[in-house]
Amino acid sequence: MARVFLAKEGGLPATDRGLAYGDGLFETIRVEGARAPLLSKHLDRLARDARRLGIAITRNEVQRIASEALVEGAETRGDEAWVLKLIVTRGAGGRGYRPDPDGEANVLVLEASAPPPPPAVGVRVDFSRVPLTVNPLLCGIKSLNRLEQVLAAKELEGDLFEVLMSNNAGDIVEGTRTNLFVDTDEGWRTPPAHTLAVSGVMRAHVLACLQQRGEPVFETTLSLADLMSDSCRGVYLTNAVLGIVPVAELAGQALPVNNRLATVCGLPTEIDGASC
Amino acid sequence: MARVFLAKEGGLPATDRGLAYGDGLFETIRVEGARAPLLSKHLDRLARDARRLGIAITRNEVQRIASEALVEGAETRGDEAWVLKLIVTRGAGGRGYRPDPDGEANVLVLEASAPPPPPAVGVRVDFSRVPLTVNPLLCGIKSLNRLEQVLAAKELEGDLFEVLMSNNAGDIVEGTRTNLFVDTDEGWRTPPAHTLAVSGVMRAHVLACLQQRGEPVFETTLSLADLMSDSCRGVYLTNAVLGIVPVAELAGQALPVNNRLATVCGLPTEIDGASC
Repeated sequence: MARVFLAKEGGLPATDRGLAYGDGLFETIRVEGARAPLLSKHLDRLARDARRLGIAITRNEVQRIASEALVEGAETRGDEAWVLKLIVTRGAGGRGYRPDPDGEANVLVLEASAPPPPPAVGVRVDFSRVPLTVNPLLCGIKSLNRLEQVLAAKELEGDLFEVLMSNNAGDIVEGTRTNLFVDTDEGWRTPPAHTLAVSGVMRAHVLACLQQRGEPVFETTLSLADLMSDSCRGVYLTNAVLGIVPVAELAGQALPVNNRLATVCGLPTEIDGASC
Repeated sequence: MARVFLAKEGGLPATDRGLAYGDGLFETIRVEGARAPLLSKHLDRLARDARRLGIAITRNEVQRIASEALVEGAETRGDEAWVLKLIVTRGAGGRGYRPDPDGEANVLVLEASAPPPPPAVGVRVDFSRVPLTVNPLLCGIKSLNRLEQVLAAKELEGDLFEVLMSNNAGDIVEGTRTNLFVDTDEGWRTPPAHTLAVSGVMRAHVLACLQQRGEPVFETTLSLADLMSDSCRGVYLTNAVLGIVPVAELAGQALPVNNRLATVCGLPTEIDGASC
């Protein structure tokens, strides 16, 4: 049974493995009042990633914890947009790195105000100088091991909204906190799941919506040339808190901006996030 | 100025970036009474890695914190061997992954009993199935991003003491918590610094001692064939808490065991660790 800690009452115990080794996961969930449109997808990912890492927590447990936090948050926040953050760790114990096979998860519940929405006219983006290395056993997992993203985020100065990170093969994979969709003459393109450091909940939502609407969408690697070619009709960043963000300028080059992706894949209004 | 937290009084604040992103460092320092023979090298690495990550803490600050902890630990521990652990994080704050450029470090001070010494007759070691991926900007840094080591350490069952991890190029790089020295007909070999996930303090001590004694020592990549060849006269693991550990069996094959490396590079007895 997971132990629940509320950030407003203090942090996790000093011996928690989340701090010691980044041995845990997190979700940042956008909420409007008590409605969290992508909650279901957040819970899916959290449960899936916990299984992959062998962290003892079920989807039902996290759902119960999230539901309580949503009700409580709604009482204090009213209709305001806010962010519910859940940190799920493997808990304490073990022999050094080796986990205690009977260990129980810790969950830390945090909340914050929502960040301001990105400008609708699009954002300025550049390429990161920090290489992205993705262990195949950890690909896509929103774990607490995020030092590469921290180093890359140090490059964000002034109105630079995001930097895109490339892997060892030269593929452009994702931003520090966003996944990537490219509108091309042939259809939508987004880097494949096994190459991702973090497989975003908004990415999953957008992919599902595009497929449901019958739009051609391909999970393929993206090169610099792909992004800079004439057939690139637009570049979009996705993030569960910020939504779908059009890129107006990439490495100094202007890009066409429209609302097509947001129109096709706007946020669902149902709390379970099952529909587009 | 860094804020100091004592584990016996509680953990770090809920918003600490060490927990959120693994945005920090740690050292585990072996102490006998109040003497920490490798303290100087631990402080060197901590200060160097903090500089590389841009975490605001100086060697003098950490030295002061460690010295106080050593004095206090000696009072309660007597002559017993124990382990002083320091976790240094970037502190709180920032905009998501992006650090606050004016942020101040947090330091968590923990202590534990020393683990039992490994058997002098040598230990059983195997190869890990978890690949090691090392970002060149993070190589050697003992950061809080240790999920790969956690996954590999899950393979340690029964009397299996350690597993050796390989990188994408097929080089055998290090154990989950140890660095690697191989005794060959041509001299000592150890994987080069830029390939390491963690550049161990005991590795630095052993390298310096071998060089000081005029022993031939080469920082070169190691393949499976190198470890299994007839010219391999012995394999040794190094760890600042456990010391120099001979390998008696590697992937089911017996290896010769002697005390030569321990004799050449036994632990210094001076607290500053400057001499061999």
